[in-house]
Amino acid sequence: MTASVTRETESADGRSASRRRGNVLSQAILQATLAELAEVGYAAMTMESVALRAQASKASLYRRWPNRTELVVDAMECVRPYELAPPDTGNVRDDLLILLRRMISVHNSPAGEATHGLLAEVLRHPELLAAVRERFITPAIGLVLEVLRAGAARGEVRRSALTERIASVGPALLRDHFLIHGAPVPDSVPLDIVDDIVLPIISPTRPGRRTRAEP
Amino acid sequence: MTASVTRETESADGRSASRRRGNVLSQAILQATLAELAEVGYAAMTMESVALRAQASKASLYRRWPNRTELVVDAMECVRPYELAPPDTGNVRDDLLILLRRMISVHNSPAGEATHGLLAEVLRHPELLAAVRERFITPAIGLVLEVLRAGAARGEVRRSALTERIASVGPALLRDHFLIHGAPVPDSVPLDIVDDIVLPIISPTRPGRRTRAEP
Repeated sequence: MTASVTRETESADGRSASRRRGNVLSQAILQATLAELAEVGYAAMTMESVALRAQASKASLYRRWPNRTELVVDAMECVRPYELAPPDTGNVRDDLLILLRRMISVHNSPAGEATHGLLAEVLRHPELLAAVRERFITPAIGLVLEVLRAGAARGEVRRSALTERIASVGPALLRDHFLIHGAPVPDSVPLDIVDDIVLPIISPTRPGRRTRAEP
Repeated sequence: MTASVTRETESADGRSASRRRGNVLSQAILQATLAELAEVGYAAMTMESVALRAQASKASLYRRWPNRTELVVDAMECVRPYELAPPDTGNVRDDLLILLRRMISVHNSPAGEATHGLLAEVLRHPELLAAVRERFITPAIGLVLEVLRAGAARGEVRRSALTERIASVGPALLRDHFLIHGAPVPDSVPLDIVDDIVLPIISPTRPGRRTRAEP
């Protein structure tokens, strides 16, 4: 490793980039990634176009990220405006609302533009879809499951509702709403999803799953 | 109107296109549209690229469709492998399964490639999203509502569940599954959606919507 790892001296014009080091440069690159995503989309963005926008060298990007997929999910992650701990208000309705409103805060934020572009392109890029699933979708389901488990321990949630399928309903409906209607997502959406959809499904007074007829 | 409306004589090489008329030419153009969508996507396809692929003239496209958005939704519609009438098996579970399986049959068909590309790009093109919503998403919700209304008349569905929000749950979760996991969609997905999600929500033994606390 040489000084070039932490000191940026390779930018096109060397004007300001030469003074940026380590974390500052990383942040500049991640911001440039979000801007590229929003403007040209994942399909058209390249390590080179991001480097140009960040006034950084391509080498400085490759030292930090092996490819643009990793760069993109890191950029998405660093603007997530909340921690990943599950809420614990003591009741499952409020916990679920907090989780869904956190997700909405991403869609409705300035970074939402990038989220929009990202969602639009995951279908065309299996490697990006896999990364998004691993870094964002699966953890979100995990948080809902934790909230449901705590609710089950308090008797608010039937045990048979502690499944990934049921935990994924809220995030899935929110994502679909964002897909079909765009941002901003009004607060009536998480309220409807929780009150009209999720609570009836997880209610402890429900019988378990219907037994399917044998074929 | 002249003979050129029904007789195609303007293709680049005039080889086979000159013999195609009216509906035959329209079908060729719609098939070429699906192929373009699957190959280059909505963003990159043009009336010209479709005309080239269909061995038809640009004028012959514009005589039939005012713009590529209309062309694309017509192409999607003409490959829909089922009618738009609601099923009527006499029980709501079977009716819902038939509706969801119809939707899956589109995703899993050869035309599913095009659906995939289309879903991926609606976010970037508000005029396409509006057309897709009008031609596909809203009618699908309408069909579910008809099925739920028939179920309510038989006492299988609570009246307070006859809302667009609740009717949209099945199609939305199916669309989200297709978005996140791609095709083919296994039959366990509509079964889970109907048995674990939709039936508990619409069950007549459920109490109505919770009253929200006043602010």
